[in-house]
Amino acid sequence: MYTLASRSQRERTSPVMVSGVTFGQGDFKMIAGPCAIESQVQIQKTAARVVACGGHMLRGGAYKPRTSPYAFQGLGDVGVTLISSASEEHWLPCVVEVLREQQLPFASKYIDMIQIGARNMQNFGLLKAAAATGKPILLKRAASATLDELLYAAEYILLQGNESVVLCERGVRGFDRETRNLFDLAGALRLKELTHLPVIADPSHATGRASLVEPLVLACAAAGLDGAIIEVHPDPEAALCDAEQALDFDAFSRLMERLALLRA
Amino acid sequence: MYTLASRSQRERTSPVMVSGVTFGQGDFKMIAGPCAIESQVQIQKTAARVVACGGHMLRGGAYKPRTSPYAFQGLGDVGVTLISSASEEHWLPCVVEVLREQQLPFASKYIDMIQIGARNMQNFGLLKAAAATGKPILLKRAASATLDELLYAAEYILLQGNESVVLCERGVRGFDRETRNLFDLAGALRLKELTHLPVIADPSHATGRASLVEPLVLACAAAGLDGAIIEVHPDPEAALCDAEQALDFDAFSRLMERLALLRA
Amino acid sequence: MYTLASRSQRERTSPVMVSGVTFGQGDFKMIAGPCAIESQVQIQKTAARVVACGGHMLRGGAYKPRTSPYAFQGLGDVGVTLISSASEEHWLPCVVEVLREQQLPFASKYIDMIQIGARNMQNFGLLKAAAATGKPILLKRAASATLDELLYAAEYILLQGNESVVLCERGVRGFDRETRNLFDLAGALRLKELTHLPVIADPSHATGRASLVEPLVLACAAAGLDGAIIEVHPDPEAALCDAEQALDFDAFSRLMERLALLRA
Amino acid sequence: MYTLASRSQRERTSPVMVSGVTFGQGDFKMIAGPCAIESQVQIQKTAARVVACGGHMLRGGAYKPRTSPYAFQGLGDVGVTLISSASEEHWLPCVVEVLREQQLPFASKYIDMIQIGARNMQNFGLLKAAAATGKPILLKRAASATLDELLYAAEYILLQGNESVVLCERGVRGFDRETRNLFDLAGALRLKELTHLPVIADPSHATGRASLVEPLVLACAAAGLDGAIIEVHPDPEAALCDAEQALDFDAFSRLMERLALLRA
Repeated sequence: MYTLASRSQRERTSPVMVSGVTFGQGDFKMIAGPCAIESQVQIQKTAARVVACGGHMLRGGAYKPRTSPYAFQGLGDVGVTLISSASEEHWLPCVVEVLREQQLPFASKYIDMIQIGARNMQNFGLLKAAAATGKPILLKRAASATLDELLYAAEYILLQGNESVVLCERGVRGFDRETRNLFDLAGALRLKELTHLPVIADPSHATGRASLVEPLVLACAAAGLDGAIIEVHPDPEAALCDAEQALDFDAFSRLMERLALLRA
Repeated sequence: MYTLASRSQRERTSPVMVSGVTFGQGDFKMIAGPCAIESQVQIQKTAARVVACGGHMLRGGAYKPRTSPYAFQGLGDVGVTLISSASEEHWLPCVVEVLREQQLPFASKYIDMIQIGARNMQNFGLLKAAAATGKPILLKRAASATLDELLYAAEYILLQGNESVVLCERGVRGFDRETRNLFDLAGALRLKELTHLPVIADPSHATGRASLVEPLVLACAAAGLDGAIIEVHPDPEAALCDAEQALDFDAFSRLMERLALLRA
Repeated sequence: MYTLASRSQRERTSPVMVSGVTFGQGDFKMIAGPCAIESQVQIQKTAARVVACGGHMLRGGAYKPRTSPYAFQGLGDVGVTLISSASEEHWLPCVVEVLREQQLPFASKYIDMIQIGARNMQNFGLLKAAAATGKPILLKRAASATLDELLYAAEYILLQGNESVVLCERGVRGFDRETRNLFDLAGALRLKELTHLPVIADPSHATGRASLVEPLVLACAAAGLDGAIIEVHPDPEAALCDAEQALDFDAFSRLMERLALLRA
Repeated sequence: MYTLASRSQRERTSPVMVSGVTFGQGDFKMIAGPCAIESQVQIQKTAARVVACGGHMLRGGAYKPRTSPYAFQGLGDVGVTLISSASEEHWLPCVVEVLREQQLPFASKYIDMIQIGARNMQNFGLLKAAAATGKPILLKRAASATLDELLYAAEYILLQGNESVVLCERGVRGFDRETRNLFDLAGALRLKELTHLPVIADPSHATGRASLVEPLVLACAAAGLDGAIIEVHPDPEAALCDAEQALDFDAFSRLMERLALLRA
């Protein structure tokens, strides 16, 4: 059985601090940004808007895990430096997915939180190497992982002595193409009973539909999750990646207003 | 393509009236009651509590579809009269699942709304016969039905001239036994984009865990569904059916208070 | 627990006799015919070919359970008499799906075996009424039924004193649209360990692709299932139902030859 | 779209040669061995038996991807040298799974074929690095990968100029725990229509039940797959890993005899 990750270890959710932002304190944290970092202008504009609307962290993909080798693979190290600049300028901690152990030395110098994506949830070498950087880690649930499997993956990180792990539900493989994946909100809530680690959700990847992001973020907040990570883009139609699931700035502002209203 | 059920038919959600309770008017309706009607005392006590806490309708199973022939099969017609009395006494419209066409003449005399359960979503004879009673129908999504299949099932009812259909997401078959089914909240929200029919959810059957019912009802309300149907029992541990997913009266009261708070 | 259906009841597979054809004797039985009975000519021609190629039973849909109310719903009672004539003329017992209890008195006079389809696997009233006719029953696994649930459905029939039940795996709901369903051959084999009832498979509905039917029938035979039920049509492209999964006569002949070769 | 992997590239299955064993020539190749290499005696005894029974290749895990960090993690580099010795001594090419790019330089010196496991199917860095070794690659389908996603993963390898790729179906995530995974034989057969690469199957991991391995291997052979990879252990009950799915030597011999019979 997983033991370090188990709820039996601690009565309260363990707070995870990421450069001044703390997950797991009973409030709801918003991470927002583009699927892929595309240019300095794009990431700077997005960071400015995220801050202005009350978002807590900036996301953006530099090393992109793409199903097809012919799809845009991300800006790589350059992307990392671009999001890092935007992050510093706007006092907004950033999270970036890392795909290979070799990317960690460079990326961990610039970013505040390392994301392990769904495809790498059981890439145990990467889990251990990421843990060893000492950086906080956002660990996404794999497309058909049970909650147990996710918690065992977290256990690999915790066993390295790195206790700063935030879990993320991002939809599991479903049978109906009306949504990209099947968003398992109940699973995320069950996770919070099984573990003391903070749990957030990614309704953008879970559904693949921008129109469903706002209601699902509100649902996550009402249900008591610790936050959400969503995709926002200055011009979704021109996005190089996952265009149909990104919010534009207006939709993002409206969402943040409604979220503030809900929490009040 | 389904046409009568399609959102393209109407801009607004079609209101469905059930003996004075209207679904689909932008607010959130709560249906509560035991999985199975077990006795006069049980259903009367439950009805009293549902009313007292601000619930809108009473649920209770009389004809129970049970996986095992050795499990409690419900009180049948007697159950119908028991819930009907409780319903009248407390001015609380009731919904009861019907399994066979032959049960319709009796049941439809006593109950306010006919439930078609997940196992019968594509029992087309039953759909048509239930539609022909003219009663409002609560149509539950089958365990692995796509949204399209659910809407086609609704179309079978609408084609009979019965427009009073409320759809219900109750969890789809998942791979992780931590929750009984996989609650597809995003699917329910997507449904509201595809159809003008009201959509509610059943987090009790979806999760099989009483502890997850409250947060999920709050989530459904925050996300904009039209209501929820949940299981409440005076003494869950003694319930003859689905004991682990029923709320006791205290938990139900707390849920209704938090729901009131959320809506305010 | 199911007890009558359990393997612990009997060491050997229980033979099920259908008008002279016996399932469960260690050999492999082939049921073939069109998805829907469309005309006298169609079903007569098919029956003739099925016999000529060594098939053991004739299938054909009269009452069709269709996802859409706008799709061809079958010829109903007329279809039953058409397949019955073809069946008698060619000495080929027939199996027809029944959807409603009310269809049983008529249908059971004409047909040799009653099929309960996947959508009705847990239509318990229908199961009991079909059992009460005394006819052998072909019980198909529902789209997301566990093996346990299928065996409990069989138990409903066995408890009526009808022991002539053949189980059929026909694919479960999957996530990849490359095949219509996910054919669970291992589940069918596991079934044979759990129950003494004969188990056959339906690769036509399981895959929705005519090109996969032959290799899968050979696989079922090699693995030791008790038979298969497949779709054959004189002119698949003109079929009113499931055109893409029916074999034409040439493909059927080739399959039967290879099957004979395999068994030798 | 994947292009190099597409069936449209070549009419015939592309033969893949692994140290004298060729996949994709219309016959059926058997790879067998323990889940994990545990000792010199264990792997030597197994290799001897595999050869004696007519097996074509030896499998054995050295770097084990384990859900739990507390489970046996394999002998690592030592395991590679042990299987390599057994492989050479018995003239039986071997395949070993590699988990990290850093393991490739060592492992590729000793082994004949590199396995990319289900958990790493979309570990694109590993795919490219493994491809660059020039070794033949056995690419397993991830637990919920569509056929498209598997073919895109193969495309990553082919794009590096390494054309020696064999695909392997090993069961997808299912909802019924009666089998460990849901063995998708129809998917494997559909793969052969979509790609010119050889396709084999792993019924041991797919089902998690030793009793189902023989019938499924026979099914794969009858259906026309290019081979199977299964688990064999001198003493399954004492196995350090996946004990319940390994065949003992007697069961393996019997399987090989029946397979020979089937092919004749």
